[in-house]
Parts: sequence; C-alpha cells; structure tokens
Amino acid sequence: MNGQDEKFMMSALKLAEKGIGSVEPNPAVGCFIVKAGQLVGKGYHKKFGGPHAEVNAIDDCRNLSVKPEGATMYVTLEPCCHEGKTGPCTEAIITAGLARVVVATLDPSPHASGKGVERLRQAGIDVEVGLCEEQARQLNAPFFKHTTTGKCWVVLKWAQSLDGRLAYAQQGPERRWISNELSRKDAHKLRRRVGAILVGINTVLADDCMLTPRPSKGKKPLRIVLDSTLKIPLKSRLLRTPKASPILICTRQAALDANARHAERIAKRGVELLACDGSSEACDLPLLLDELGRRGVQQVLVEGGPTVLASFLKQGLADEVCAYVAPKILGPQGAVDLAGPMASLADEIGLASVEVKAFAEDVRISGCLTG
Amino acid sequence: MNGQDEKFMMSALKLAEKGIGSVEPNPAVGCFIVKAGQLVGKGYHKKFGGPHAEVNAIDDCRNLSVKPEGATMYVTLEPCCHEGKTGPCTEAIITAGLARVVVATLDPSPHASGKGVERLRQAGIDVEVGLCEEQARQLNAPFFKHTTTGKCWVVLKWAQSLDGRLAYAQQGPERRWISNELSRKDAHKLRRRVGAILVGINTVLADDCMLTPRPSKGKKPLRIVLDSTLKIPLKSRLLRTPKASPILICTRQAALDANARHAERIAKRGVELLACDGSSEACDLPLLLDELGRRGVQQVLVEGGPTVLASFLKQGLADEVCAYVAPKILGPQGAVDLAGPMASLADEIGLASVEVKAFAEDVRISGCLTG
Repeated sequence: MNGQDEKFMMSALKLAEKGIGSVEPNPAVGCFIVKAGQLVGKGYHKKFGGPHAEVNAIDDCRNLSVKPEGATMYVTLEPCCHEGKTGPCTEAIITAGLARVVVATLDPSPHASGKGVERLRQAGIDVEVGLCEEQARQLNAPFFKHTTTGKCWVVLKWAQSLDGRLAYAQQGPERRWISNELSRKDAHKLRRRVGAILVGINTVLADDCMLTPRPSKGKKPLRIVLDSTLKIPLKSRLLRTPKASPILICTRQAALDANARHAERIAKRGVELLACDGSSEACDLPLLLDELGRRGVQQVLVEGGPTVLASFLKQGLADEVCAYVAPKILGPQGAVDLAGPMASLADEIGLASVEVKAFAEDVRISGCLTG
Repeated sequence: MNGQDEKFMMSALKLAEKGIGSVEPNPAVGCFIVKAGQLVGKGYHKKFGGPHAEVNAIDDCRNLSVKPEGATMYVTLEPCCHEGKTGPCTEAIITAGLARVVVATLDPSPHASGKGVERLRQAGIDVEVGLCEEQARQLNAPFFKHTTTGKCWVVLKWAQSLDGRLAYAQQGPERRWISNELSRKDAHKLRRRVGAILVGINTVLADDCMLTPRPSKGKKPLRIVLDSTLKIPLKSRLLRTPKASPILICTRQAALDANARHAERIAKRGVELLACDGSSEACDLPLLLDELGRRGVQQVLVEGGPTVLASFLKQGLADEVCAYVAPKILGPQGAVDLAGPMASLADEIGLASVEVKAFAEDVRISGCLTG
C-alpha cells in the first residue's frame, strides 16, 4: 500500500458514488484499473441489474485498446464469485489477466464474505484487502447495516426555513414548498435510493401526498403511513393510486377492530394493513422496522411530520438526517414547528460525516447520527 | 466591451473581495492591468490607509518588469482624483501611461463622482464606465448605502442549530457555543468589517459578552447595547473594559432620570449614554441608526438576541442576514428560540444574492433583504 494506491482507491470511491440512487438495494461500487502507474480503465455499478463495476472497468480498458493483463485493479468492494444477475466478477478478473487486486472492504454477506478474495488468490492473483475500508463501508452504510444486522437503515428527511418551520401556514401558488426546485429534485433522488418512504397520517391529511419518486425511473418504493387510529381517507391520493407503488398502512389491532369496514375497503384496493401494537397508543416503530428488514427493505426514508421525525430520534432508531434549509424566515407565514417536537428528545443530537451541498440558494445538510 | 473585458472585470471584482474586513470604511477595490490580452499586473486595496488597488496594480507591473504604457486597466470603482491618505490614483494612472481604463462603477460620493473619469479623459485616456456595475455596487453595498443616503447598513448575525435554537440551556465546557471554531473565526472577521456591534441587554446579561473583534487587527468598532431601562451591571465585562473599544448604551430619558446615579457611574468610565426615546417602551431604532449614520458608522452588526433581531426585521431596518447553521438538533438542551420572535413579523422574509459557505461541518447562509 502506498500513496498512489490510496489515491486510486479514493478516486474509485468517488466514482462509485455516481451509482447511489440507481443501484439499490445493491451496493454502489467503483473500480479503477492501473498499468505502469497510468489509469487505463474505470467503471462503476450504474444500475440495479446492470453489469458490475469490475466488468465495466475491464470493458473500458478494451475500449481504449489497452490490455488489462498484468495491471492492478482497485475495487471498492470484494468482487463477487457467485452467479447473480450477472456472471461472477472473479472469473472476469481472472480471464482478463489482472496481476493484482486491491479491495477496499470484504463483502459483508455471510455467504459471500472472503470467497471472492479466496477465488482470486487461488488463481494466483496478488490480493490486498482493507485500503480505505472505513470510507468504503460508509459509502454503503445502509447495505452494510442491513446485510450484517438484518435491520433497516433509517433516513430522516425534511425541508425547513431558518426559523425551523416545515410548512407554510396557508399554501398558495407561491407558497407551496419551502425548498426550491433543485432541492426537491434531489429529494426525489433520495426517494429512488430507498426501499420504503414513511410519513405520519397528519402529513397525508395536510399534504395529500403521493410519496412516489418522480420520475420513478422504475423504482417503486413501499409507501408507508403511520396511522394508529386508521383515519386515512379512501379519497386520499395515496389510496386512489394503489398501483403506482405498494402501500402499507401501519396501524394498531384496536383500530382495525373498530374500523373493520374501512379496513376492508382499504384492503380491497390492494393496500396492506399491518397491526404494529406496542405499549403506547402509537404504532410500535421497532416492530415495524424489524418487519421491513425481514422483507428486505434496506433503507426507509422518513419524511415527517416533525412529531414522527422526533419519534424516530427519541427511540434511537434514526441513522441519517438530511435537512434542506431554505434561506427564508417564514415568521407568521410559517407552520409546523421543528423545535417543539424536538424539545421532547432525551438529549441533543449531533451529526457525524456531515456533508453540506448547495442547491442554488438552498443548502442540504446531511450526516449520520453519532453513537 | 467584449467577453474578454467582462472576464477581466469579474476577476478584478473577485480580487477586490480579499479586502473585505480590512479596508472598511473604505470600499473594497480590485484592479487588473492587461496588455495585448495578457494580464501583466493586478492589485487590490488591502487595508484602510494603505495604497489603493490601482497603485498596487501598477507596482505589480513594474515588479514583473512590464511597462504599463499603452495597457488597459480594469478597476472596480472609479479612481480617486483627490488627495486622501494616499496620492490621487488618477495621477498615478496618467503617469504610468495607461491607454484605456474600464471602470465598473462611478464613485458614489457627491464630491468625487465622475471627477476621476473626467480627469483621465482630459489626459487623453480612453475611459469606459459601467461594466459589471451591479456586481461592483453589490460588493460594496454598505459603502454605497451610507455614501448615498447617509444611513447605516444593518447586518443581522446569529448562530443556530437546525431546530432554530440560538443557545444552550445550560452552558458547559462542551456546550458553550452552537457554532464551531471556524465559524466563530469568520464571525470575528465580520466584526472587523463593521463600525459598530449591537446587542440587546439580555444578551449582555446572559453571555457577559465583550463585543470586540478577536484578534482586533487594530479595529475598534463601537459597542452598542440596547438597554431601555438601564439595567447593565457595572461589573459586566463590557463596562469593565471601556478602553478596549468605545461603548454606547442606548437607553431612554426616563431610564436615565430614574437611574441617575447608575448613569453617572457608567458615564464616569468613559461610556456614552444616549437617550433614544420613541413611541414605545423600547429604544427607537431608526433614531439610533440615523445617529450612527451621522457619526460615519457605515455598517452595524446586530448580534441578537432573537427579539432584537426580530425588531430590526419588523421595522424594515435590516439589509443583510448572516446565519451560521450547525448540524445539530439541540432539543431539550436548546434555549433561545428563533421561531417565536420571528412569528411577530408582518410577513415572511426572503433573502437575495444568497451565499452559502461551509466552515467545516457548519454552514454560513447569508444574503440581502429583498425589497
């Protein structure tokens, strides 16, 4: 390992990021191929079901008429050695004649971990593991969490004014959204990244939201509403569009019993109802998250309102926060206060690995929960 | 005027920015000298009392052993033709033999406006005025406001958590500041930019603040406290450091009468007391700002608390907002709510010419008041 190695691996990690939002639930992977100190090919996993980063990088060499024989490959995740949607990458690497493979981190899946590296070594390739490992794990933190614990990665997302308001008191053509068009476009990218999108019933009643990514680009995340008393109206846009993407109404057994006919009508539309009873009158969030994890939902995006956001924080269930801050003070035009519900937390919440990104005049502040 | 001209002027404007925080109350000015399409010298006004941008740029040519004869000068503000702290720039330009001078905007001072350009034209130099004029005026907006209206430019500054808290409920070694060290360093630069720093008495009582820029770099902005009932304690750090930089306690006549002895003791320390009576029980802010403008204070930095910040917004007296946002949710550890006082505004406040700048994990969101 030397400075050169690290430079190429960091570039491969940067390249891998381009797959975020398209590859899920697969991990994002980047790959660089270097010969005599020169980059001769690069590739990343572009979309779910498409070729893996290693294969794209090998193809890239060939497009440039460079033979990958004897070269070094930098790859951000252990190459697969199993037949999946595509052929095993290990065989492609062996066939291409790579001499050395530097791997940032092993595949966390129990059935695959270490096997790709073993296969390459058996074929006589010099393999090194662990360069920029922390960054590589961070890049695919939701994938690592779900694969190793079976639990779902929870992202809290909201848009706010400087004075911590999440909505306009009275909506109008000029006062519909807090954040600008670019921010909202980015938020839809976030929706495409996840397997499920969750809101509280009050958000459905206030915004009559669809909860679909737009454009969907083929993604159909599960739409979840926390509705402990089963108040969701049949005429809501959500219940009128059951085919747009699946819907799960998370409620309680008592609400199902008390509203049996309403529940039946909802179910008839192909919408799933799930009783998540806990000790309180709210839906039991750990129960719901366990269920989502079991169903293979790697990430859930919680879009509010603030009481729901605060519930996840209060119970220590959030992994990531993504706040879009608009350069406005809503003052008397503002509604839906962030500070109030947050005051009920046990302690302050700090973010780690913070990323700040401007979207024209808005700014997105994101980071992971510490501890 | 062509694309080339605009490119050089924009670069000169960018260069001029480097003087912000050191040149005040002078305007920041940048200058490029170009010969046969090549940049041959550049300079900016570095600090108050130092040589002007034009002279620095001409010297830069000479350092590079290039003769400025026949070259084009791009300067972001009309060159001065009066003897100030330095000799007139017009004469330096004429002596250096520049053939063409492109000026972004005229000097707004009634006694100087147009005279520099006139002098250059008399000397046979080809002068063009108005390239990137809006950007040039924006760069020195406080200078333009004060010079043309006699009024003070008002900057509102605060640091906040995402949930709109401006302070910790209980301070401790780890919980002293909302913002990080880099943000606070930048906030001290902002203090060096202005002629006066203002807070309300509650901020003095809560934080026992000094209100001095640190390091001061020779700047001694006037420290102002809004204290309508004259509550400021003699033992406050402010009143114990009258020599660090001048202090003005803005109060009301009734408070001076009711606390004559306290007022006398304050005055004895060399601290000025000013009665700014208005129609309410608060100090009259327009009266105070007029007085500051008359005294030559070009910019005042309002540092809070939120009630004071909201007062300036409510009365339409603010020109600029500068908010440092830390990636934290203070929740139960938070105090001093921004949303509450802001709810008393007449309408929402939007910002224009927004600038977003990251300071490690904090972000500074600044902009000018619209309308």
